[in-house]
Amino acid sequence: MDGAASHRERASGTAAGAPGPQPVTAPQGAPRPRVVVVGAGFGGLWAARALAGSPAQVLLLDRNNFHTFLPLLYQVAAAELEPDDIAYPVRGLIRGLPNVDFLMAEVQGIDLEQRQVLTSRGPLPYDYLILAAGSQTNFFRMESVEAHAFELKTIGQAVTLRSHILRLFEEAQREPDSERRRAMLTFVVVGGGPTGIEFAGALAELIYGVLVKDYPRMDFSEVRIVLLEALDRLLPALPEALQTYARQRLEAKGVEVRLEAAVVRASPNRVYLKDGTSIPTRTLVWTAGVRAHDLVQHLGVATARGGRVVVEPTLQLPGHPEVFCIGDLAYLEDDEGKPLPQVAPVAIQQGEHAARNLRRLLAGQPLLPFRYHDRGTMVTIGRNAAVAVVGSRAIKGFPAWLAWLGVHLIKLIGFRNRLLVLINWAWNYIFYDRGVRLIVEREPLGGEGEPAAD
Amino acid sequence: MDGAASHRERASGTAAGAPGPQPVTAPQGAPRPRVVVVGAGFGGLWAARALAGSPAQVLLLDRNNFHTFLPLLYQVAAAELEPDDIAYPVRGLIRGLPNVDFLMAEVQGIDLEQRQVLTSRGPLPYDYLILAAGSQTNFFRMESVEAHAFELKTIGQAVTLRSHILRLFEEAQREPDSERRRAMLTFVVVGGGPTGIEFAGALAELIYGVLVKDYPRMDFSEVRIVLLEALDRLLPALPEALQTYARQRLEAKGVEVRLEAAVVRASPNRVYLKDGTSIPTRTLVWTAGVRAHDLVQHLGVATARGGRVVVEPTLQLPGHPEVFCIGDLAYLEDDEGKPLPQVAPVAIQQGEHAARNLRRLLAGQPLLPFRYHDRGTMVTIGRNAAVAVVGSRAIKGFPAWLAWLGVHLIKLIGFRNRLLVLINWAWNYIFYDRGVRLIVEREPLGGEGEPAAD
Repeated sequence: MDGAASHRERASGTAAGAPGPQPVTAPQGAPRPRVVVVGAGFGGLWAARALAGSPAQVLLLDRNNFHTFLPLLYQVAAAELEPDDIAYPVRGLIRGLPNVDFLMAEVQGIDLEQRQVLTSRGPLPYDYLILAAGSQTNFFRMESVEAHAFELKTIGQAVTLRSHILRLFEEAQREPDSERRRAMLTFVVVGGGPTGIEFAGALAELIYGVLVKDYPRMDFSEVRIVLLEALDRLLPALPEALQTYARQRLEAKGVEVRLEAAVVRASPNRVYLKDGTSIPTRTLVWTAGVRAHDLVQHLGVATARGGRVVVEPTLQLPGHPEVFCIGDLAYLEDDEGKPLPQVAPVAIQQGEHAARNLRRLLAGQPLLPFRYHDRGTMVTIGRNAAVAVVGSRAIKGFPAWLAWLGVHLIKLIGFRNRLLVLINWAWNYIFYDRGVRLIVEREPLGGEGEPAAD
Repeated sequence: MDGAASHRERASGTAAGAPGPQPVTAPQGAPRPRVVVVGAGFGGLWAARALAGSPAQVLLLDRNNFHTFLPLLYQVAAAELEPDDIAYPVRGLIRGLPNVDFLMAEVQGIDLEQRQVLTSRGPLPYDYLILAAGSQTNFFRMESVEAHAFELKTIGQAVTLRSHILRLFEEAQREPDSERRRAMLTFVVVGGGPTGIEFAGALAELIYGVLVKDYPRMDFSEVRIVLLEALDRLLPALPEALQTYARQRLEAKGVEVRLEAAVVRASPNRVYLKDGTSIPTRTLVWTAGVRAHDLVQHLGVATARGGRVVVEPTLQLPGHPEVFCIGDLAYLEDDEGKPLPQVAPVAIQQGEHAARNLRRLLAGQPLLPFRYHDRGTMVTIGRNAAVAVVGSRAIKGFPAWLAWLGVHLIKLIGFRNRLLVLINWAWNYIFYDRGVRLIVEREPLGGEGEPAAD
């Protein structure tokens, strides 16, 4: 497995990305082209791995030393999975690929003219660049919401949200003031897309399935889980029958679904809606939109909705054939003129395609346009319930949930993670229990991390 | 299992510790005595559970909402186990005990006269008190060491240490200066007791078994793991043959063992020894001593070595028969005049004994002196190697390691944890891999958390 053994003699501290003293497969005398891949998410990781064995020397960058399986992040926030279940060290994923190296660094900018990536570890020159920095939460310029909302884009955020929710129950059971207690026990999730629905469903199961046993003296009729969606329907991309089913299942689980309910402002203890009403809450979870990573703003290139980089059908940056943009960062339309969705399958296929086109570029062959192969969409609504579109078929209920479970288990990277996740899920399913409900303090040994209410 | 069902009707917000409106088993008219247990470690948790079904109303306090299985904490720091493997929510552990409740709060002081525990949630009155706040790291007043050393007493500290070690490897592979690189790759563990030995052994296996595969271009001859012990031997409480074996096994794993090497001072990049020499390092792990929790300092009672409270043979506080002190906090000698060790079995047995004596106190019966039943000592030195004393028998090597594995699996609280830990261990054992080597940033989405070197 360890094909990198021949590199062991190299001096430690060699600048990665620079060709080694003894290129392994490149033609004698010709230095290997340096490829820098920014981001070890689905797009970047798949691109880097697809370049294994190519004539390029690949350097993969990420601010974390691990890849995060984002489709299951909401389960970490709902105390259903452990952070380590959905994260895997990048070095473990590129082990044995002799021409692929990793560097943990924060990317601060791209100098397209000088062909350098500017990082916290200094500038890194490249001959070819694959930009896969992904997306970040879009608050649509509502600063008060950005200041007070919880996000669900990183493991750190998921753990913070999990600890916050569990700490509120600890506080609420000792809170004599009924109004304050109800605000503590009101959880507002914004966004009727997959993340919002999946998190709201998982939160309902955490509260009504598990916490209800942990707090036998608490009145759970005071708990509210509210899902707000600005449009007039959930899951707009799916058939109407599935939209209706998703809503019914959520309501059966105890989630209040409010449509045409747009958030306009937030304070530490309240969220304000466009219709003039407001909801007292200490927990506002924002899943209502993403936009391209800030890195894009410094590129000086044309962007589309959500700040995404408009790319050529070959995934190249217009005017910069040496730069590929992929995944959530890139804007490309399908044959019908619809923008490709910002989902993992698109990122993975684009990562593989960018690698393929880069190999063709190195070989002097013409590049190929990217075509997305849509294998379907799935959204789970907790225990036993999901909706899915596979090809032209819409399925729902237990079969859809089983399909969701299988697909996610297969897709989870690393056999060990898969096994642990399966055990966690099986345990939750059989015993309606969650072992992961730890409140992790931000400060080691710190006391109550919660700000004073009101 | 849920014996607390009859409590569900109680109003939410009832002050815990106060008797419920309908006492379940207390004689009609007599209020239940309020017992506050400070600390949900081994002592406090076992005491609270042993009081289930007694006439007392028990309130268990802890700053965390989870119990930590401290004997395996070093494996979290060595990226061998996940934090959740060795932690379990306290509420899950007292579920179904109708007269036992939990409160997550930081204890700030004890008012022995007014019989109140002063907490971050306000004062809590008690009729009887069980103090089980445990111990903290003892730096023996060396402030520079306290400022720069890593501790191994909490999950937060273990995760911080794990992230620090992994980040140093990320940095070292890019560090061109050989002197700085060697300092980054030098890991100094202070303390030749069980924690120091177990951590040094686990660290050697992480580095030479796993990281060596993650960094195929790094020169691992630059790595040093140094174990410093001020005395002239490791594990002074064990027979000499086992001390020698432990040292040989550590050295075989690549750990430099230095005896009679007392630390006197530390800086961010160096540790200074009593003999005038120093070691350049960015990682000083301090396992060389513990002292009783700071809480004891405000009690105004007699303390022994390490700040431990000198208790009556009944575990009561002298002059305060309503207060029991147990575990690492308490000082008591055995029949031969030797102080009882600060280990989990003593805390567990004292927790059970304090509960027994409290029941006798409530029933007007004479209290019994505590006797420690020493079932043996075990220290593991990594894969396949351990030393153990069981009764008068000293065993070592693979049989001792198997015994250690079995005992720790059985003792780990909660079946789910046990299963996950077993899978983790089996995986590590078979594949020499660790999936947990994630660098968790303190700040969500933060960049390089490491301070600038030198």
